[in-house]
Amino acid sequence: MNKATKTAGVIIIGNEILSGRTQDLNIAYIGKELEKLGIVLAEVIVIPDDEETIIDRVRSYSRNFDYVFTTGGIGPTHDDITTEAIAKAFGVKLFRDPEAVACMESYYDPGTLTEARLKMADIPEGASLIDNPVSGAPAFQINNVFVLAGVPSIMQAMFDALVERLVSGPPILTASVCTNLTESKLADGMKQIQDACTEVSIGSYPFFKRGKLGVNIVLRSVDESLLSKQLALITTLIEETGGSVLEVQR
Amino acid sequence: MNKATKTAGVIIIGNEILSGRTQDLNIAYIGKELEKLGIVLAEVIVIPDDEETIIDRVRSYSRNFDYVFTTGGIGPTHDDITTEAIAKAFGVKLFRDPEAVACMESYYDPGTLTEARLKMADIPEGASLIDNPVSGAPAFQINNVFVLAGVPSIMQAMFDALVERLVSGPPILTASVCTNLTESKLADGMKQIQDACTEVSIGSYPFFKRGKLGVNIVLRSVDESLLSKQLALITTLIEETGGSVLEVQR
Repeated sequence: MNKATKTAGVIIIGNEILSGRTQDLNIAYIGKELEKLGIVLAEVIVIPDDEETIIDRVRSYSRNFDYVFTTGGIGPTHDDITTEAIAKAFGVKLFRDPEAVACMESYYDPGTLTEARLKMADIPEGASLIDNPVSGAPAFQINNVFVLAGVPSIMQAMFDALVERLVSGPPILTASVCTNLTESKLADGMKQIQDACTEVSIGSYPFFKRGKLGVNIVLRSVDESLLSKQLALITTLIEETGGSVLEVQR
Repeated sequence: MNKATKTAGVIIIGNEILSGRTQDLNIAYIGKELEKLGIVLAEVIVIPDDEETIIDRVRSYSRNFDYVFTTGGIGPTHDDITTEAIAKAFGVKLFRDPEAVACMESYYDPGTLTEARLKMADIPEGASLIDNPVSGAPAFQINNVFVLAGVPSIMQAMFDALVERLVSGPPILTASVCTNLTESKLADGMKQIQDACTEVSIGSYPFFKRGKLGVNIVLRSVDESLLSKQLALITTLIEETGGSVLEVQR
């Protein structure tokens, strides 16, 4: 990867993800969006709604990555402790942000903006708001940390609203080849192709579909011509090994 | 939680999860199974296929949790580097395990057990095998680390095969209530109910379904009578707040 490429870390906050009660969908969404932007998602951590843990992980991720995204724990109830923990992580206080209150006033019917809801307008000092077109209460950014909702539809809208703040790198281009051969038949050939050109990373993902074995081979690079060259070598390898190229995606 | 309760950490290894190309399903599966066993899943980390990162995280998770589960990177191709990295994490060498070879011989047709496939019989010294009823090549356990496949169907079969090695705690009981009220209306009441009894954790998860807002409230405890008591308080709260209890699950 280019040394100028920005890195990101994601912190998924929520007991419901760790207990398996809720299937996480945010990792894959953020991963895909960052790839389009040429930003490398380097690490994801899933942690419980526990203040000390949130403070510790937010501090280390903020130091280690260019951008950090958290999801979950910014609603109005007793188990929504993310905002307060993040303020503590950066040693600042919460204040009721008039701009956040105004966002919420324009979203809620008159008389329904209760004190519990207004808790969502309490933002760490020094944070800037991120628009929430779905449910009113804004997300926020403090330093390099973007603090987003856990519900996927809301998180996605917030992510789309913050994208313009990120410095993109050269987009990471991908190509994939699907074949009916099993991984092990291609292993030696793929290793040779990979070793000859480290600028294109080659991943190999076996699958079982309708009782058939096969493999998806995924190539990733910021260099289009090298990507095409390596893709051609892989398809030739598949054919020479006696397999069929079932599908190629660019 | 009871001090005797065992904790677990999960390490999801794979570029394809971080890029969003593959939707992870293993976190939720392992989380649910551990909950049934009364083992607390304390943290999950998703990391790339990078040797140094794997070594570092496996060492720290092995120290910090009673049990560690890794998924991904144990196949036959060049990007399957988990087994070697785990051997390095524990300072041992790989050896071709005759028992693993025998498992694979009984699975593969004669003549199809290639050198690439046999790479999957190379196991760290001191590890014990975990049966793979789906695709032959076994998983393994070294110290408190269980090293499993990434493909969900295979991972699940391996997990089921290792369960008897885990020391269970008192099972974590759950109950949930679904209501048409929004979170913010219940926030104060839920906080009071939670604060009065910390042995039952109460989580609040808003949803949007068919254009309707609502909330799932999830209660978790190892104590059945306290769980029932808190559940009754929550349903009373919902009714007194003017909402409907749409569904109760035990």
